[in-house]
Amino acid sequence: MKIRFIFLFLICTAARAQSTDSVTIRKIFDTALTEGKSYHHLGVLCREAPARLSGSRNAGIAVELTRKMLEENGIDVWLQECMVTHWERGKQEVLRVTGPKEHRNVSLKICALGSSVGTPKGGITAGVVMVDSLAQLQRMGEGRIKGKIVFFNRPMDPRFIDTFHSYGACADQRVWGADEAAKYGAVAVLVRSLGLRDDDFPHTGVMIYKSGIQIPGAAISTNGAEKLKEMLLHSPDLQLHLEMSCQSFPDTLSYNVIGEIRGSEHPDEIIVVGGHLDSWDNGEGAHDDGAGVVQSIEVLYLFKKLGIQPKRTIRCVLFMNEENGSKGARKYAEESKRKGEKHIVAIESDRGGLAPRGFSVEGINGIDTVCMQRLQQWAPLFAPYLVHWFEYGGSGVDVSKLKDQGTALLGFIPDPQRYFDVHHTADDKFIHVNKRELELGGATMAALVYLFSEHGLPAQ
Amino acid sequence: MKIRFIFLFLICTAARAQSTDSVTIRKIFDTALTEGKSYHHLGVLCREAPARLSGSRNAGIAVELTRKMLEENGIDVWLQECMVTHWERGKQEVLRVTGPKEHRNVSLKICALGSSVGTPKGGITAGVVMVDSLAQLQRMGEGRIKGKIVFFNRPMDPRFIDTFHSYGACADQRVWGADEAAKYGAVAVLVRSLGLRDDDFPHTGVMIYKSGIQIPGAAISTNGAEKLKEMLLHSPDLQLHLEMSCQSFPDTLSYNVIGEIRGSEHPDEIIVVGGHLDSWDNGEGAHDDGAGVVQSIEVLYLFKKLGIQPKRTIRCVLFMNEENGSKGARKYAEESKRKGEKHIVAIESDRGGLAPRGFSVEGINGIDTVCMQRLQQWAPLFAPYLVHWFEYGGSGVDVSKLKDQGTALLGFIPDPQRYFDVHHTADDKFIHVNKRELELGGATMAALVYLFSEHGLPAQ
Repeated sequence: MKIRFIFLFLICTAARAQSTDSVTIRKIFDTALTEGKSYHHLGVLCREAPARLSGSRNAGIAVELTRKMLEENGIDVWLQECMVTHWERGKQEVLRVTGPKEHRNVSLKICALGSSVGTPKGGITAGVVMVDSLAQLQRMGEGRIKGKIVFFNRPMDPRFIDTFHSYGACADQRVWGADEAAKYGAVAVLVRSLGLRDDDFPHTGVMIYKSGIQIPGAAISTNGAEKLKEMLLHSPDLQLHLEMSCQSFPDTLSYNVIGEIRGSEHPDEIIVVGGHLDSWDNGEGAHDDGAGVVQSIEVLYLFKKLGIQPKRTIRCVLFMNEENGSKGARKYAEESKRKGEKHIVAIESDRGGLAPRGFSVEGINGIDTVCMQRLQQWAPLFAPYLVHWFEYGGSGVDVSKLKDQGTALLGFIPDPQRYFDVHHTADDKFIHVNKRELELGGATMAALVYLFSEHGLPAQ
Repeated sequence: MKIRFIFLFLICTAARAQSTDSVTIRKIFDTALTEGKSYHHLGVLCREAPARLSGSRNAGIAVELTRKMLEENGIDVWLQECMVTHWERGKQEVLRVTGPKEHRNVSLKICALGSSVGTPKGGITAGVVMVDSLAQLQRMGEGRIKGKIVFFNRPMDPRFIDTFHSYGACADQRVWGADEAAKYGAVAVLVRSLGLRDDDFPHTGVMIYKSGIQIPGAAISTNGAEKLKEMLLHSPDLQLHLEMSCQSFPDTLSYNVIGEIRGSEHPDEIIVVGGHLDSWDNGEGAHDDGAGVVQSIEVLYLFKKLGIQPKRTIRCVLFMNEENGSKGARKYAEESKRKGEKHIVAIESDRGGLAPRGFSVEGINGIDTVCMQRLQQWAPLFAPYLVHWFEYGGSGVDVSKLKDQGTALLGFIPDPQRYFDVHHTADDKFIHVNKRELELGGATMAALVYLFSEHGLPAQ
């Protein structure tokens, strides 16, 4: 009988906790939707510090702007120094057909890939070989590739419902294409933009040189890729002229911006919520990742606004240099390790300011399983907000650097259909972010942070 | 033992059926995302027949366009005659402040509400009374209202996650505002636009006159409403000049467009999938309800394309005159009853071409419960497509006319955050529809229609 009573007591306590939690979560959503600041903050960030690639002047402005946004809401802020990548696109980005006659002077929309070297002065003129994969490139070998511009044209597969799978299945062309093609004597690479929409916006993104020879790499818009493919079909001897003036500079000093509300009961247990402060240099960085930045600030703002004193320490980390180096995230993880900090959970928002759907979870030594059990237990608290998708999977580039510290890593998942329309393009603008979708995302993150701050995560 | 075996057999059969179903549903989604026609169809409809209000020339063009879209895919089509509302906005729509001096000549963006009478020639000039509800209007009575323009300014509540609740809680101002205000001697009404975004687009929509006196009704944009409120705060004696030249004409002949694939095993059991062909006259009618139209066509196209022979009859019904009369839907329901047709299920798509979330269900005599049980049983088949929301609730204006025939009525529910940004405005344009979101919606509807066509609905 006694055991039954204890059991009943535990059930009642759990039910009461869920009920208190649901009331607080309702307040979080109500406040985000009526007195939220995230949309205003995003407008300011996109207007005053668009194109805030790490090492740029605008990245510096973004540091100051977000520091101020946190401070204005009574949040303790500090800047964490980090040396970051500094690469500039330069002014020249031209791709033009030089022959045969019927296509001469056709221009195609391109943009340099991040970290690419420029072309020699006067550009590169060469024939083109279209491939659909690194494997096909290897099969062709030096005989077919030497002296040519390699055109990687494998499109993203529209059949995945989660477009991040489509992206993941094509990103090797962009990241490793130039490095691989150089091994066979290619003089440059063009990579079909990683987007699912047919349009004229080239999508930039990082590429990496591992081997010795560095050749230029550019993204070509999806419409441009289709046009180039068609021209090649009729004129396999097509000649292209490529000119780019991008270049790398020595690493420069920048900052992670960190805001914190100290926990009242377990201040040593830290919950991180974050996004990345840098953006590509061609757009406003609204969805990628202005949204994640202002949502992370919003989480702390909502705690302050509602007067919720978290039991555990909540930290908003705005990481610098995610796009082309992750040096901010590395620095944050190093410092955390050095100081012996205990990060129990880290949540990243870096998939756009779109309607919230759920969270992905990863982590070592079973912490992912423990965390998933929590999420499944809390799922009914999220259902009224149409948040329903909890899965094992990658969290985010920045928070994943905390993996070996045993932190449970979560990625906020908004609806994935529209993100790759604007990702890494000049079209990633504030006007394409919906106020409610952004606010609901911030509230969803705040609700989860609240639950972790109240209930922690059992040791696994 | 025998019973156990039968039980086991039934479980295995059910599992096999779910497995076959899941394969077919996968094909439906794959085909919609790779060879779908809905986005192309929507582009054509919005370009060649925008502003297709019933009774207009463009409504006639829309009938022909959609008939052709169905026929081109080898689907049997017929047109069902119906007499429909014919109302025209006319050229004049002006709202201007005439006094006091400090606000004189400020213009505010308005548009006539559907079915409104125009103003007398030369317009109406009068003072303004702001109210937040029909109840407040009643409390004020003739003493405060007579001779005035009544300004209904209750905003939509942003706290509802389902924005249709916010809409439903404010629509009485638009529908009945003029009729009620006329009872107290008002000379016209202005209604705050039913949208959640701060912008300059007035949202039209239907209003209804019940009583004898008909006074003009116009929608004012959310920004305009805020401005007017502010001016009234400082100048309660504000005078407005309103001019509108809208008018009603006698009902005209139009058509519901009906496409059908006859069932192989139970041809007498009909499953309807539909949207409305008419749209408001100020935009392209892209989300409302071009999306529902092309998605309903897409359902039949996907069956044809995949060579799926439905066991039950599938009918795509494109209803005319949903926006200001529902006369197409009434005619369809009457004819169905007259012919003794048996509609087991009717699904309506009229909430925009946005990412699919689920379905709402209604019906009499317990058919809603039976249908909900089916949906819950099928929920795992939808989970991979992020379709998770099955609730009791209103289906749609058009299919609801079949309610008394015992049909299970379903409303397709896309994500509700962005719909009211463009609903009934000049901004309801094709460019605001995302291809993937539209296609996923059509596939979701096709999957459900497939399940009903295979498994029917048990008699309740």
